[in-house]
Amino acid sequence: MQPSFTLDVALAERSYPILIGRGLLGACDLAPHLAGRDCLVVSDATVAPLWLERLAPSLRGARVETQVLPAGERHKSLAAAAAVIDALAGMHAGRDATVVALGGGVVGDIAGFAAACYMRGIAHLQVPTTLLAQVDSSVGGKTGVNHPAGKNLIGAFHQPRAVLIDTDVLGTLAERELVAGLAEVIKHAVIADAAFFGWLEEHVDDLLARDPAALAHAIRRCCEIKAEVVAADEREAGRRALLNYGHTFAHAIENVQGYGAWLHGEAVAAGMVLAAELSGVDATEVARLRALLTRAGLPVAPPEGSRPKLAAAMRMDKKNLGGEIRFVLLERIGEAVVGRAHSRQRLDEILAP
Amino acid sequence: MQPSFTLDVALAERSYPILIGRGLLGACDLAPHLAGRDCLVVSDATVAPLWLERLAPSLRGARVETQVLPAGERHKSLAAAAAVIDALAGMHAGRDATVVALGGGVVGDIAGFAAACYMRGIAHLQVPTTLLAQVDSSVGGKTGVNHPAGKNLIGAFHQPRAVLIDTDVLGTLAERELVAGLAEVIKHAVIADAAFFGWLEEHVDDLLARDPAALAHAIRRCCEIKAEVVAADEREAGRRALLNYGHTFAHAIENVQGYGAWLHGEAVAAGMVLAAELSGVDATEVARLRALLTRAGLPVAPPEGSRPKLAAAMRMDKKNLGGEIRFVLLERIGEAVVGRAHSRQRLDEILAP
Repeated sequence: MQPSFTLDVALAERSYPILIGRGLLGACDLAPHLAGRDCLVVSDATVAPLWLERLAPSLRGARVETQVLPAGERHKSLAAAAAVIDALAGMHAGRDATVVALGGGVVGDIAGFAAACYMRGIAHLQVPTTLLAQVDSSVGGKTGVNHPAGKNLIGAFHQPRAVLIDTDVLGTLAERELVAGLAEVIKHAVIADAAFFGWLEEHVDDLLARDPAALAHAIRRCCEIKAEVVAADEREAGRRALLNYGHTFAHAIENVQGYGAWLHGEAVAAGMVLAAELSGVDATEVARLRALLTRAGLPVAPPEGSRPKLAAAMRMDKKNLGGEIRFVLLERIGEAVVGRAHSRQRLDEILAP
Repeated sequence: MQPSFTLDVALAERSYPILIGRGLLGACDLAPHLAGRDCLVVSDATVAPLWLERLAPSLRGARVETQVLPAGERHKSLAAAAAVIDALAGMHAGRDATVVALGGGVVGDIAGFAAACYMRGIAHLQVPTTLLAQVDSSVGGKTGVNHPAGKNLIGAFHQPRAVLIDTDVLGTLAERELVAGLAEVIKHAVIADAAFFGWLEEHVDDLLARDPAALAHAIRRCCEIKAEVVAADEREAGRRALLNYGHTFAHAIENVQGYGAWLHGEAVAAGMVLAAELSGVDATEVARLRALLTRAGLPVAPPEGSRPKLAAAMRMDKKNLGGEIRFVLLERIGEAVVGRAHSRQRLDEILAP
């Protein structure tokens, strides 16, 4: 079966396709994207019972072993990556082995990082099963795990060989996970495409109702935006930082709450509102953003009482460069900028108790 | 103070200098090679008391913290790399921090790998203090740690910003470490430069006597050979594998003995003889190699009784690609080749009890 849509992430010798379509899992042959015969499928306790068996025909002919990790952000640790490496060593995987990440962002980040470190880098495929992973974390080669001092503090840039997005898997996704994914969908519109933001205002109910055509359109547009940004700036020397819009606040929220208390997308939603407020854009723009997030069922403010703690948490954020916190700011809906100075006073106001 | 000799490793935007000279430690200003103000010097319990204080003036102006690791190959573990990452997080190091590895190959590999993983890659400098690290492991960007299933099984390619080689530090090097380093010196000659091999036959006693001029010449020639090979093939897709001459056997020896029982260079010496025997070169060539290694005080055979265990250990070697063990073989002294088939029967004979 052919994917209904293929996008390319253009990175010279590291270029790879994103295959998007309905029912691809099990129907799409992944053999052309494997480095060799050995294959370790990494999944988690939530996703494995639902989709692991369905994936099998896509890997026909490969020598497949499976590793099921505990589910959840709090398990995204160096220990989890080490467990994947142990599994690869245990199957005597060589340099031509391939890691296949079947799951959400946590599984993709852990499995991708393990692939980056095993024998100084083996191939990996991403098969994202959450909306958030499909529109964001599976594309672009950022891999990593959390450290008590900060989210994704340990990691590597390691591009996958291919990303397989089956929109059907969203059918079993928990409502809260779907909603959290919409935060990253909205983020792509906010930073790069005002028309797409308008489309989302019209179609947010269709997305919540899991209308396949609406989901496919949103996923495709997000992947296009992300692929274009990543191709222009693979290692986040500049432009790629746009994708972090709302994330400086979001990481701080997650850090203060403890990883996993809020879903990443929920923290991003609140973070995007804070970043819009910090940007000093027109109040009607902030109101439009709040309204869309609210209709999607997302939070538009950080947790009660957390604001004073966010400043300290942000100082440990990866994007903090030598003490100066660099925010991605909004010019208007559909256009974000990196590197514009922010108002200290405005930040203090936003983070006041 | 200017280094008496500077070599460049030509890797486009990842190019860097190797500074070689007497008395550079503390005299050479490293500021131009730091990414920012924050700096974590990683050393070990053997080297720190000898050279840490001497290094300080080279880092004047930087905010320097220090981490001293336990010494020895058996501490080259993921836990050690995690400890370096903890130290970076503890000092709130940002993306512009620099890790400075002051020590032998173990320190350089751990510190370099931690730098590769921290925030998906920060800068590092290598300040090698053993002959082995000066002629081999500090140049070329291979970083990593051991796993119970194999040496350097976890790692990354991560080039340093600069390598600072002070030949004076070899004055305090233990005799056994100096001798082990000579194995890698001899390796560079064997794989790439017959004239240099001849020079070593004439000057091995000078090197053992730590004659500064002889050491400087040998280090420079090894770095030239290594820099040229790495520039041609950074990620070991082909030619760089030449540098692994003798290492398939050597890693097996280290694995069978337990890491640290034999020094890496000692295992490489025995491994080079085994590889020469497997290559089927003229017996006089093998004899020349044995003679030079013996004069240098190095072993020319694997440990008593270990031969039958080496085959199993080699199957787990990183250079094993999908089940087929690929040896680097010798055409003659001064010329090695990658990818030539070896005789199974000859291998069985070599590894017979």
